[in-house]
Amino acid sequence: MCLPLCLNAMARRVARRDFLATSSLGVVAAASGVATALPTPPQTIRYTHVVDLTHALDPSFPTFGGQVQFQMETTTTLDAEGWNTHRWHIDEHTGTHLDAPFHKSDHDSADRIPAAKLVGPLVVVDVRAKAAANPDAELTPDDLESWIKKHGPIPPGAIVAMCSGWDAHVRTPRFRNSDSSSTLHFPGFHPEAAELLLAQRDIKGIIVDTLSLDPGSSTDFPVHVRWLGANRWGLECAANLADLPPTGATIVVGAPRVTGATGGPTRVLALV
Amino acid sequence: MCLPLCLNAMARRVARRDFLATSSLGVVAAASGVATALPTPPQTIRYTHVVDLTHALDPSFPTFGGQVQFQMETTTTLDAEGWNTHRWHIDEHTGTHLDAPFHKSDHDSADRIPAAKLVGPLVVVDVRAKAAANPDAELTPDDLESWIKKHGPIPPGAIVAMCSGWDAHVRTPRFRNSDSSSTLHFPGFHPEAAELLLAQRDIKGIIVDTLSLDPGSSTDFPVHVRWLGANRWGLECAANLADLPPTGATIVVGAPRVTGATGGPTRVLALV
Repeated sequence: MCLPLCLNAMARRVARRDFLATSSLGVVAAASGVATALPTPPQTIRYTHVVDLTHALDPSFPTFGGQVQFQMETTTTLDAEGWNTHRWHIDEHTGTHLDAPFHKSDHDSADRIPAAKLVGPLVVVDVRAKAAANPDAELTPDDLESWIKKHGPIPPGAIVAMCSGWDAHVRTPRFRNSDSSSTLHFPGFHPEAAELLLAQRDIKGIIVDTLSLDPGSSTDFPVHVRWLGANRWGLECAANLADLPPTGATIVVGAPRVTGATGGPTRVLALV
Repeated sequence: MCLPLCLNAMARRVARRDFLATSSLGVVAAASGVATALPTPPQTIRYTHVVDLTHALDPSFPTFGGQVQFQMETTTTLDAEGWNTHRWHIDEHTGTHLDAPFHKSDHDSADRIPAAKLVGPLVVVDVRAKAAANPDAELTPDDLESWIKKHGPIPPGAIVAMCSGWDAHVRTPRFRNSDSSSTLHFPGFHPEAAELLLAQRDIKGIIVDTLSLDPGSSTDFPVHVRWLGANRWGLECAANLADLPPTGATIVVGAPRVTGATGGPTRVLALV
């Protein structure tokens, strides 16, 4: 696994760029090592519409492994019993879904993530151009720096989303983009970008519009290991991120409150 | 079924009280019969914390019929395969959950409810005192009138919740409160209250902290029939409504976006 090397590379990179002194990322990444609780002043949200960041889920929804992960069984009908009802059989990591820290660590299961961690200002990092040119593209520290230069510091308590435009492929083979050796090819977070976001201790979660926080071709899943291992949550298969501004939207992540769950189907709404 | 009688009674009641002239309910319930689209000005939400209105779900969660409606199967573990994952087997109407219109009509399934219908100002109608005295208590037009007298008109686009305090019983037999003939006894909406809320055409949904929109002892479920039959959604088994103010909170209903679903487990968060 590349993680120690990545960490070293990240440390060098951060030092080289004096990143900590020039962006909000540094405010809580300073060297004291003391996690200071940030003040939580009243929040104000102004919005005119609600954007649905959730794909509709049916049994044909693509999955990381390629197998069917959702089935819906009719249990009663309006005509026969007076009620329409179904029973679902569903793997937690299906559709637009949460990765709880417990998916890849001994940290919080879905039910233990505090509600306040599921609401926050949304940062949308647009990597569509490079993803269109290269399906193995990654959201890197350079992308975060560019965002900060244009839009200012990442807000306290933010949720950071990679907008690769990959949701447009959801009903085509390109969504998984499996090659002849069954390796997948779609964008994800670079582990150094995840490290930089971890350094801003109050960032609540990260979001991708692909099947994995790591790029599809990853074999060791360093972003899952580090991000979930730091007791943060991730969200995969988001939709419609391109309909949102780079900053200014507030996101509400309707993650399942299922005891012991490692994740699960999630309704994600943005107030814009 | 009592519905025609209820409607007649409601019409008489409304006429008697001149309800339409004295509350916001009347603004869109006037006799023209033309559904005028309300303006949708920018909304502002100010909040200091997020209240979780969702019960944690596990296989022991009480159900209307008494049977187990949720099972969680371990599919992989961190130690063995490197990932913790589960597969769920779940009836849609389990835990804190949505009733889509399609549950009791041919109207919208869960995936077809527009996202904007899942966010709105929350009206909390407190019927705890009478529910404590009588488990068959109902939220009636009188309760709505009292709320309006104290707090003003029901806001446009509101979501209206019955706070009966019943969520406190969730892990005890009193939550279902089944008698010797297997009839359940817990509070719900009176059909005349549902009719009054239907008359305010922009009310998005209704919420209860019990197992059913109708009281537990109902045999014909008139609130389900009328409310879902009017293509509105309901939500059952909400938690923590007593922690909210009567007005001023904004609710975000994280209903599942599952194609064709009649409802499903839902994460419900209030910004207060």
